[in-house]
Amino acid sequence: MTTVHIWGAAGYAAAEAIRLLHAHPFVELGALESRSHAGEALCDHFPALRRTAYRFSATGSVRASLAAGDVVLTAGGHGEAHEAVPAFLEAGARVIDLSADYRFDDGVAYGLSEWNRARIAAAELVANPGCYPTATLLAVLPLLSIAQPRQLIVDAKSGITGAGRKPNVSSLFAEVAGEIRAYGLDGHRHEPEITRILRERDCDVPLVFTPHVVPLARGMLVDAYAVFDRAIAAAEIDAAFGQAYAGNAFVTHAHAPSVAAVAGTNRAEIRYDALGTTVRAICAIDNLGKGAAGQAVQNLNIMLGYPEETALDALRVVA
Amino acid sequence: MTTVHIWGAAGYAAAEAIRLLHAHPFVELGALESRSHAGEALCDHFPALRRTAYRFSATGSVRASLAAGDVVLTAGGHGEAHEAVPAFLEAGARVIDLSADYRFDDGVAYGLSEWNRARIAAAELVANPGCYPTATLLAVLPLLSIAQPRQLIVDAKSGITGAGRKPNVSSLFAEVAGEIRAYGLDGHRHEPEITRILRERDCDVPLVFTPHVVPLARGMLVDAYAVFDRAIAAAEIDAAFGQAYAGNAFVTHAHAPSVAAVAGTNRAEIRYDALGTTVRAICAIDNLGKGAAGQAVQNLNIMLGYPEETALDALRVVA
Amino acid sequence: MTTVHIWGAAGYAAAEAIRLLHAHPFVELGALESRSHAGEALCDHFPALRRTAYRFSATGSVRASLAAGDVVLTAGGHGEAHEAVPAFLEAGARVIDLSADYRFDDGVAYGLSEWNRARIAAAELVANPGCYPTATLLAVLPLLSIAQPRQLIVDAKSGITGAGRKPNVSSLFAEVAGEIRAYGLDGHRHEPEITRILRERDCDVPLVFTPHVVPLARGMLVDAYAVFDRAIAAAEIDAAFGQAYAGNAFVTHAHAPSVAAVAGTNRAEIRYDALGTTVRAICAIDNLGKGAAGQAVQNLNIMLGYPEETALDALRVVA
Amino acid sequence: MTTVHIWGAAGYAAAEAIRLLHAHPFVELGALESRSHAGEALCDHFPALRRTAYRFSATGSVRASLAAGDVVLTAGGHGEAHEAVPAFLEAGARVIDLSADYRFDDGVAYGLSEWNRARIAAAELVANPGCYPTATLLAVLPLLSIAQPRQLIVDAKSGITGAGRKPNVSSLFAEVAGEIRAYGLDGHRHEPEITRILRERDCDVPLVFTPHVVPLARGMLVDAYAVFDRAIAAAEIDAAFGQAYAGNAFVTHAHAPSVAAVAGTNRAEIRYDALGTTVRAICAIDNLGKGAAGQAVQNLNIMLGYPEETALDALRVVA
Repeated sequence: MTTVHIWGAAGYAAAEAIRLLHAHPFVELGALESRSHAGEALCDHFPALRRTAYRFSATGSVRASLAAGDVVLTAGGHGEAHEAVPAFLEAGARVIDLSADYRFDDGVAYGLSEWNRARIAAAELVANPGCYPTATLLAVLPLLSIAQPRQLIVDAKSGITGAGRKPNVSSLFAEVAGEIRAYGLDGHRHEPEITRILRERDCDVPLVFTPHVVPLARGMLVDAYAVFDRAIAAAEIDAAFGQAYAGNAFVTHAHAPSVAAVAGTNRAEIRYDALGTTVRAICAIDNLGKGAAGQAVQNLNIMLGYPEETALDALRVVA
Repeated sequence: MTTVHIWGAAGYAAAEAIRLLHAHPFVELGALESRSHAGEALCDHFPALRRTAYRFSATGSVRASLAAGDVVLTAGGHGEAHEAVPAFLEAGARVIDLSADYRFDDGVAYGLSEWNRARIAAAELVANPGCYPTATLLAVLPLLSIAQPRQLIVDAKSGITGAGRKPNVSSLFAEVAGEIRAYGLDGHRHEPEITRILRERDCDVPLVFTPHVVPLARGMLVDAYAVFDRAIAAAEIDAAFGQAYAGNAFVTHAHAPSVAAVAGTNRAEIRYDALGTTVRAICAIDNLGKGAAGQAVQNLNIMLGYPEETALDALRVVA
Repeated sequence: MTTVHIWGAAGYAAAEAIRLLHAHPFVELGALESRSHAGEALCDHFPALRRTAYRFSATGSVRASLAAGDVVLTAGGHGEAHEAVPAFLEAGARVIDLSADYRFDDGVAYGLSEWNRARIAAAELVANPGCYPTATLLAVLPLLSIAQPRQLIVDAKSGITGAGRKPNVSSLFAEVAGEIRAYGLDGHRHEPEITRILRERDCDVPLVFTPHVVPLARGMLVDAYAVFDRAIAAAEIDAAFGQAYAGNAFVTHAHAPSVAAVAGTNRAEIRYDALGTTVRAICAIDNLGKGAAGQAVQNLNIMLGYPEETALDALRVVA
Repeated sequence: MTTVHIWGAAGYAAAEAIRLLHAHPFVELGALESRSHAGEALCDHFPALRRTAYRFSATGSVRASLAAGDVVLTAGGHGEAHEAVPAFLEAGARVIDLSADYRFDDGVAYGLSEWNRARIAAAELVANPGCYPTATLLAVLPLLSIAQPRQLIVDAKSGITGAGRKPNVSSLFAEVAGEIRAYGLDGHRHEPEITRILRERDCDVPLVFTPHVVPLARGMLVDAYAVFDRAIAAAEIDAAFGQAYAGNAFVTHAHAPSVAAVAGTNRAEIRYDALGTTVRAICAIDNLGKGAAGQAVQNLNIMLGYPEETALDALRVVA
C-alpha cells in the first residue's frame, strides 16, 4: 500500500486522478492540498466525487505528512511545481508532475509511458506529458523508424477541460457551445514540447501545430500529417506500428478513432492512412485520461511495479 | 431618429439590445458605456457583433453625451442603476432599466409590455421585467380573470446566459454540459417580483418557485401550475387567453411551446391544459429576448410611438 | 457464477447493462440477442464497449442457450416482452424486464428496489420500473407516511437517451441542442405507472405529470410538488425520509441534487423543502442508471443474493 | 418581384433559404415542393419558421406553377436534381442547384460567388458549391497567384447539420454530443469537387482532405495547409488576399476566425499564417449559410442584378 498525495488538488486533472486512485487497490490517498479550497469537501466542488469523504488540506500539508516512499502528484499551475517539488524529493518521495515545469529538463524522465518505461520505472521525478504532445507523439513516433518527414502538420481538437477550471469568459458555456475556434496561433506551450521529444529522437522536422477548442467537456482528436520525400507504403506503417505498440493495453489501432470511445479511459486509438507522400495519423485520447490523470496513474503503476492497467481498466459509460 | 445610449453595455442582454437596435430604422446608437471595457471594440468581445464598428465608451460617457429626448437602456448589475438613473432622468432622458433596481418601485412603470402599455407609453422610467417573471406572468395573468388559485407552483428551466457573462465556475462549459440543476432553492430574486405583480392584481396566492439551469445558452421554458378550488374548463381558459392577447404580435398560443421556436425572437409561446382543479400553463420565451433585450426594445417602441414590432420581426435561424 | 442473457441488446439501456455486467464479479454474459444487429460486434455500435469482444446473436439465441437458473434481461421495445418472456420462464430462467409490459401485472414484482426488496428477491419475473416513475416514486413515497396529498404535480426533465436509439428527427443533435420542450402532453405512458404504484399504497391523489427533454444525453431531474391540506414540517419529512432510506447505499439526501453527480451511477439524490402546504421534492437520477440498467443490476443482485452494490459502486468520471 | 420556388424543401438548407427569402424585399416565395411532407405546414417541422404560413406543396407543384423568369432552388438529395432540373430550364426558369449533381459539369456555372460572378450573372443554371469546398477554396484560391503548392492538406470541422435531416443513428444527439470523429476517410464526395476547381485554375496539387464532425448544429472551420517549395512571405499573402477580396462584403480577414461569428450569416472569416514553407489558412463559415443557403441567395442576387447583400446583412444573435 503506497500513500499518494496530491499537490494542487482542485483542478480537473487532479480530481480525475483522485477518482482513479480512489479505486486503486494498492494505493491510499494522503493529503489533497489546495491553497484555494483548504478545508472544503471535494464532493462540494466535484459532483463526480459525491460519495467520497475527501477534504482539501491546507498549504504545506503534503510536505508535513510526507514519508519516504510516498508518491506526490503535483498538479498546480504551470510554474508552481518548480517551487514545491524539490522539497518533496528531499523528503524521499517520488513525484509525478502534471505541469509543464519539468518537461524540458534532461535530468527528468518524460512520462510518455509506452516510449519511456525503463526511465519512468527508475525515476524519482517524472514529467507527465501534456495532452497535445501525448496524442501527437503516440501517433508520430512510430513513423520515425520509417523515414524522416520534411514537414509535420498537427491539427488538434480538444474539449474545454484542457483550459482548466479557472473561470474565464472564454470557457463559459455560452461562449463554447456553438463555437469552433483555433487558438494559440501565435505560439502554444505544447509546440516546443513536441519538438523537443522529436529532436531527442533525431527528428528535426519543422512543425506546424494548430490547437482548436470544440464544444465538449473532455476528449481530444489529433490529426497529424507527416509529409515525406517519398511515398510511404501502408505495410511499412503497419510494421512500424506493430513494433511500437504490440502487446500494449492502451494504444490500439481503430478503423475510426473516436473520442467517445476513449473518453473516461486511459486509451488511445490511432488510424494511419498512406496518401502519396503524406501519412495521415489520427489519434483520439481523453485529454484528462491518457492526456493527464490516466497517464499519471499509468506512470505511477510503472514506478511502483504494479501491472500497468491497475485502476485503469474500467469501461466508460454508454452515451 | 432617437438616440439610444446603453449604460452597462458589456453583458449578454446589452449586446443583444445593441444587435436589435443596430437594425432599428428609427433609432441610432449613442454611447455604449462600460466601466470594464472602455475603449475596446465590441466586435472583439461579441462574435455576433463582428461586422459592427461600435466601441465601449468610458465611465461617464452616457451622461456626457445625453440630450433631452434621448433614451438610455441601463443594463448594469443589480444595485447599480439606482446610482446612475436619477442623473439620466434629470438630463431629460427616458430610461429603460434592465436590472431589478426599480421593479419594486410603485412610481415606476413595470415593463411587462402586453399588460401595461398605457403606463409604459407615458413613462419616464420603465423597469424592464426579469426573464422568469416575464414568462410566468404572461402565462398566469390571464387565469386571474377566471378564479383565484389557492396555490401557484412555477417550475422554470433556463439557459445559462441568464447567469450573465461574469466568469463563475458554475457557468463553465464543463460544469453546465451534462448537468440539470435547480438553484436559488433558499430564495430567488425573481420570486418576490412575481408575487408583487400578482398582488397588484389582487392575487395573494402562495407561490412555490423553482428555477433550473439546463445545458443551453439561451431560452427559457416555464411550467406554471395553478391549483384552484374548482375544476376550470378549457373554454374558460380559451376565453381568458383571447381576451388577454387577441391581436398581440408576440404572445401566441402553441400546441407545443418550443424554446427553439422563440430563441432569438421577442415571442412567447403558451399552452394551457385544464387538468381537474389544476391548470398547467407552459410558456417558452428567450431569456435574452422577450425576457430582456427584446422586451426592452418593445417597450422603447411603445414609449416612442413606433409600431411595436419595429426591429423585432426577424425570423430566427434554422437549427 | 450466473449466466445473464440480454434479449433486445441493441438499445442504450441494454448496452449500459452490458457495461455494468462486464465488470460484475459473479456474473458472466451469455447471449446478447438482437434482431436487427445479429452477428455484428457491439464495439462497432457502442464506442463505450470498444475493448470488449461481444457480438450480437441472432433471434432465438437466448432461448436456445438458456439453462435453468440463468437470468434474462429483456430490453426490447414496449409490447415485445409479452411474447418472449413466457418461454424464458418456462425454461427455468428468472427474468428482469426493462420494458413496460409487466409493470401493470399484479402477479409480477415491481422492481423499485428500495421499496420492494422481499418480493424482488423471491421473484421469477421482475418488472423494472420506468425512469420517470423511479425518480418520482423514490421522492414521493416517503411523504405518504406523513399525510395524503390533495394534488401531486410532477415536472420532469430528461436527457434524450430516454427516447431510445431509434433514429427519429426529434432526437437529432440539431433538433435537441438549443431546445427545451415538454412532450406527451396529451398522455404519457409513465403517468399510469406512477398512479398505479401510488394506489397500491392507498394514495389516490390526482397527478399532473409533465415530462421534458433538455439538451443532454443522460440524466434526469424530477421536481415533485405535493400539495397537502395542512402545512408539513421539515422535521416530519426528515423522519419519513430517514425511515424510508436509512442504510440504503443508493438513495441519499443532497443539498443540491445534481444530474452530473448521479450520471453514470445507480444513485438517486433527493432534497425536500416544506413550503407551506406544499412539499417540493427534487430527485436526480441517471435515466440509464437507477432509471434503467443500474436498477436492473441492483435487482439482479437482490434476486441472486449478492451485495446490492456489486458492480454498482464505481465513481463517475470528472466532467 | 421575382418568384422563387424551392424543390426539395424539407431539409435544413432549404428551410434556411426560405428564412432568408422570406425577408428578401424583391422576391416572393412560390411552390415549396416536398415529396415527403406535401400539405404539411412548415412551422410544424421547423420551429424557426413558426410565424410563417408556408405549406409544403405536392410533387409536381413547382413545375406546375412555374413561369418564365422564375427562379428555382433545387435542394433535393444528391442524384435527384438531374431528373428535375431540365424541365425547369425548359420552362424558362433559372435554377440554383444545392446538390452535387451539376458541380462537375463544365457547361454549368460553379456558384462560388466571389470567384465566378460574371458566369453566375449570366447563367441559366448555377451549381451551388458544397460547404467544405466553399470554405476550402475561399481560403486557398488567393494563394495560387503566389506559387504552386506541392501538397495541400485540408482539415475540416463541421456541425452536424451538414449530414442533413435524415434520421440516422450517427446524427442523434446522444451520439454527437461528447464525440469528435473524422469520417469519409476512404473518400469523401467533396474531395473531387475541390480538386476539380483547383485544376480549372491550373493547380494540380495532391490533396489530403479530412472532414470531422464536432458537437454543434451549424458552422464549419477549415484549416488548409499548403506546403510550398519555398518560404512564402506574409506580405505576399496579404497582397494576394487583398487582390482577391478587396471590396467584398462577405469574405474578410479575422485575427481569430470564429464559427460563432459567422453562424447564421453569409460571411467567411479567414486568417493566414506563413510558417516556413507552409502556409496555414483558417476559414470559418456557416455550413448552412455561406456553405449552402446563404451563398444560394447571394448567387440569386447576382443572377437577378440585386445588390449582393440583399437579405444577407442581418447580424446573428448574441450567444
